[in-house]
Amino acid sequence: MPRYRLTLEYDGTPFAGWQRQENGPSVQAVLEVAGERLSGQRAPVAAAGRTDSGVHALGMEAHIDLDRAMPADTVRDALNFHLRPHPVAVLEASLAEEGFHARFSCIRRHYRYRFVERRAPLSLDRDRVWRRPFILDVEAMNAAALLLKGKHDFTTFRSANCQADSPVKTLEDIAVTRVGGEVHLTCHARSFLHNQVRSFAGTLERVGAGKWSAEDVASALAAADRTACGPVAPACGLYFVKADY
Amino acid sequence: MPRYRLTLEYDGTPFAGWQRQENGPSVQAVLEVAGERLSGQRAPVAAAGRTDSGVHALGMEAHIDLDRAMPADTVRDALNFHLRPHPVAVLEASLAEEGFHARFSCIRRHYRYRFVERRAPLSLDRDRVWRRPFILDVEAMNAAALLLKGKHDFTTFRSANCQADSPVKTLEDIAVTRVGGEVHLTCHARSFLHNQVRSFAGTLERVGAGKWSAEDVASALAAADRTACGPVAPACGLYFVKADY
Repeated sequence: MPRYRLTLEYDGTPFAGWQRQENGPSVQAVLEVAGERLSGQRAPVAAAGRTDSGVHALGMEAHIDLDRAMPADTVRDALNFHLRPHPVAVLEASLAEEGFHARFSCIRRHYRYRFVERRAPLSLDRDRVWRRPFILDVEAMNAAALLLKGKHDFTTFRSANCQADSPVKTLEDIAVTRVGGEVHLTCHARSFLHNQVRSFAGTLERVGAGKWSAEDVASALAAADRTACGPVAPACGLYFVKADY
Repeated sequence: MPRYRLTLEYDGTPFAGWQRQENGPSVQAVLEVAGERLSGQRAPVAAAGRTDSGVHALGMEAHIDLDRAMPADTVRDALNFHLRPHPVAVLEASLAEEGFHARFSCIRRHYRYRFVERRAPLSLDRDRVWRRPFILDVEAMNAAALLLKGKHDFTTFRSANCQADSPVKTLEDIAVTRVGGEVHLTCHARSFLHNQVRSFAGTLERVGAGKWSAEDVASALAAADRTACGPVAPACGLYFVKADY
């Protein structure tokens, strides 16, 4: 079966998450249905990151196995046709190299978390960004974020449902900056624990609000205790940006 | 009755338009209901621009008459509370000067029309921008747009339903430029005819596609004939940006 590499953009709002599951529509399932409509056979799909319900993707990398070869542009256009009306778009498709696996071949995942500072509710950006009704101290957030960089036991920033074998991960880079009228947390690593970026975002938001100090973040990390974590930030602000191979 | 000036942001997608009407929810109606819940009395609302169904606002100026005075911040927050769950946000509120009328005092309206060039369907920006599956010739669009600048009989670019007394308007400025990964048409004038900006956008898109020349646009304008207009661009790409007083 030829394998095609796909670059995907999606609005996570209406989905129960990336992964096929019982309790609602998933991005994986709508892609597999679209692939089956295209090829007439089961068309298994895998992705670099298994995003949670409400989490978006700007450039998720995935692969799909089809029962027969066809031009990559046809795969892209036909999948987009069969994906309607779901808010999932195949931006690019190409024939995968031998042995390529969207999840297991991936060497780096990039995430962005978007905050907006405003008192009024959101209208056009509803479900796209986390609104904070006060000004964030971005310098303090960035300084605290840097304490998370490197190899650590990230138990504090890991969901109780996390299925990873080890809580030890290497956070390759993290930064909090102003971008246009927003505040963005960006980070990348080979892999992440379940809820890790949203746990970072919720904890750093407390720093931005002046409620936590950088030392509080360092203590929370050192505690290696889930109960030491700040609140988990809402899914709507999180974007899977890209994957490296 | 004290009058409050309001700056509004809204997602036009679920509305039949700004103006209260029989065939669906309107921005004006949800604001008037919110005002009535706040004050207990009828709370008439007027705006600088009566946007069509699907047209958005980043900074619409409006006013609301309440039966009693209250702090402007209370008006803003209480209206936002009562507007839920509609995608309409009061960004700012202030007590209006004597004689202020959001529509009749307005001396300039600013619009933006957003195009995006991509083959894949939209997911995160669905209903926010007009997707064109090819590259637009932005220089040609801008050159043709400049022919529309100034005082003209804009009958060609006016909806058959337009209720304005005269088709003669002065387009103070218009430009087509690349902004980030998008193409934006921006323009401002004291006032516009019904569907005028969407008629400009649809006609200039034909220029961007290489189907119309600048001379075709000049001829269409000179014809002063609605049937000479290019297609009317979809509402979802249009934003009321701001109003000047």
